[in-house]
Amino acid sequence: MEIDVSQARVSDEEIFTGHEGGKLSVAATRPITQARDLSVAYTPGVAKVSRAIAEDAALAKRYTWADRLVAVVSDGTAVLGLGDIGASASLPVMEGKSVLFKTFAGLDSIPLVLDTTDVDEIVETLVRLRPSFGAVNLEDVSAPRCFELEDKLKQALDCPVMHDDQHGTAIVVLAALRGANMVLDRAVADQRVVISGAGAAGVACARILQAAGIGDVTMLDSKGIIHAGRDGLNPIKEQLAGTTNAAGLRGGLADALAGADVFIGLSSSIIDEQLLATMADDSIVFALSNPDPEVHPDVAARYASIVATGRSDFPNQINNVLAFPGVFRGALDAGARAITENMKLAAADAIASVAADKLAADHIVPSPLDPQVAVEVANAVAKAAASDGVTS
Amino acid sequence: MEIDVSQARVSDEEIFTGHEGGKLSVAATRPITQARDLSVAYTPGVAKVSRAIAEDAALAKRYTWADRLVAVVSDGTAVLGLGDIGASASLPVMEGKSVLFKTFAGLDSIPLVLDTTDVDEIVETLVRLRPSFGAVNLEDVSAPRCFELEDKLKQALDCPVMHDDQHGTAIVVLAALRGANMVLDRAVADQRVVISGAGAAGVACARILQAAGIGDVTMLDSKGIIHAGRDGLNPIKEQLAGTTNAAGLRGGLADALAGADVFIGLSSSIIDEQLLATMADDSIVFALSNPDPEVHPDVAARYASIVATGRSDFPNQINNVLAFPGVFRGALDAGARAITENMKLAAADAIASVAADKLAADHIVPSPLDPQVAVEVANAVAKAAASDGVTS
Repeated sequence: MEIDVSQARVSDEEIFTGHEGGKLSVAATRPITQARDLSVAYTPGVAKVSRAIAEDAALAKRYTWADRLVAVVSDGTAVLGLGDIGASASLPVMEGKSVLFKTFAGLDSIPLVLDTTDVDEIVETLVRLRPSFGAVNLEDVSAPRCFELEDKLKQALDCPVMHDDQHGTAIVVLAALRGANMVLDRAVADQRVVISGAGAAGVACARILQAAGIGDVTMLDSKGIIHAGRDGLNPIKEQLAGTTNAAGLRGGLADALAGADVFIGLSSSIIDEQLLATMADDSIVFALSNPDPEVHPDVAARYASIVATGRSDFPNQINNVLAFPGVFRGALDAGARAITENMKLAAADAIASVAADKLAADHIVPSPLDPQVAVEVANAVAKAAASDGVTS
Repeated sequence: MEIDVSQARVSDEEIFTGHEGGKLSVAATRPITQARDLSVAYTPGVAKVSRAIAEDAALAKRYTWADRLVAVVSDGTAVLGLGDIGASASLPVMEGKSVLFKTFAGLDSIPLVLDTTDVDEIVETLVRLRPSFGAVNLEDVSAPRCFELEDKLKQALDCPVMHDDQHGTAIVVLAALRGANMVLDRAVADQRVVISGAGAAGVACARILQAAGIGDVTMLDSKGIIHAGRDGLNPIKEQLAGTTNAAGLRGGLADALAGADVFIGLSSSIIDEQLLATMADDSIVFALSNPDPEVHPDVAARYASIVATGRSDFPNQINNVLAFPGVFRGALDAGARAITENMKLAAADAIASVAADKLAADHIVPSPLDPQVAVEVANAVAKAAASDGVTS
């Protein structure tokens, strides 16, 4: 499907009208137009299918929609920039996610928003519902609960589970970094990367960049550089303190950015442009806070060779939609029982490879509306699943 | 929608092909064809809708799909005639139910099948998921657990909840009885009714017939007539023993049927045709076990003036699909917080009134494929909801 990428501001009226009655509907894959259709889809025909699945559980994969259905799950604790607004208020976002799954990957999905923020209760709920779906896209769950929740779900469920705010973002950041380094003719691994923000996205970015071979990653949270021995670190940051910040830096953003090659902003804060002047030559700035980047892209461009943001009205938009539709499509197509690190790395490579055709300083990632992206990502992810041996 | 009602046996191949990949899909109500559509349905536009709902929870009704979404819920413990085959094997039936909701009432629904048979766990799960849907159609839950589950769900959830195996069947039985009595020019209330089977459907039939004014209902389970003082009655049957069997009958089906006006079979057993000869003149026989009625309709017709079954290949098919699509449609259209006894009675009246146009001994209920039925039922149910004061 080709999508017109022309930009236009939308009015409140247009937004609310576009949400009237919700954004999803459920349809029969085969229309019921005669009694015969009912005898196939419902009684008496359906009894044969149910009996067949009762005798051979593996047939549920083939004769129900569960195996191609993504549950888009949220507790509404970290919705967009709005914070903890609750399950019901998060539902329009989850419906939107389902619209994107369908539009970009042809995948069916249902929003399941939960009126509990207890990690174990969320896990328990999804374990009970396990026969209803084939994969879980976690969405808008607050940090650090999101790390524990994802870990526990991955242990409890024998199906693909991915917290998109973590890994969708991380995959696209890695893809963009590959694109930027291709433009600059540099190796990805040989860089000093500074990540501002140690929430869901920041932590996942650090991890995928390390998995991709970048040895020198420094992270900051609201209290400054994360380093071993710092007081009051939560377990996730404690663990990151041990694997990041090879130079043992201390202090704030100024201390981290001096001489750094790459800045990745995921902190919803504003940074002083003078700090960008202290970075290494040919620096890369990803100012990803939404809707207001840490630094305006036009300002960043005075200091950096490559600039990206999350905004659709500037070049190099880093948007999760480049990743999650294809990741889940590939995982489900392959019959994967999990989403592995290699599957995520393969997704990033696939996104970078689509961008490579028209690579330029203002085109380090494909357009979020490029329909080819999900196809390539799905293929790459399915292959990685097979080679990781997680397919059934 | 007009549906061709011509009958034809379907082959196993046709059935399994018709289930390949499952029977449902999720679609966007408004297509995404340009960046503008994405800005409305997803970021940044969706944030305004989420914020509006966070500030005024009532707006979720208007701007999400939850309020028009039915959760079709089962634990797979009493699936069709197959018994306790588990959640996954029940899913094709629940998908079929969703197909019927869409086909007959234009309602969206999602199957939620649960890998637990613990009543309190099922209630807890649906309470947690409450913001995700607008109504609950319970399906294929074994008796007597189904009574407890439905009662607890009705208390725990501020939305329409109906166990279709109970009330869908009961509504259509009452409608059919109204139709039969119109043909016979008799009052519904002045009859001796015998119900064989005290499972989900039997119990609900007894209750709705009593609510409709029939004072003389006698019930039988596998041990015979249910009467006060019988040993080993579960709480549900204990309660029925106090309200049914006004004549204080004891014994078996022969004792119950002698002189009875109406026989309703919901027991999956076979009965001796000689017993039908002992019924009153102009008797009514509803032999509703599926796929094999308690007595073949051609045999029953030798003794009874009016005969109905659950089979589509004989006249007078008593099928839940006459009730549940319109009942839920009416309840959701009215914004009902519950499904009351009056709403069920109104549904039965509406079904009977559709049949009244062409009333005859072989047309006491409309065809299950008559598209007008759900429309009339929905209107009647919505009106009853309003007059019962359960609308919001």
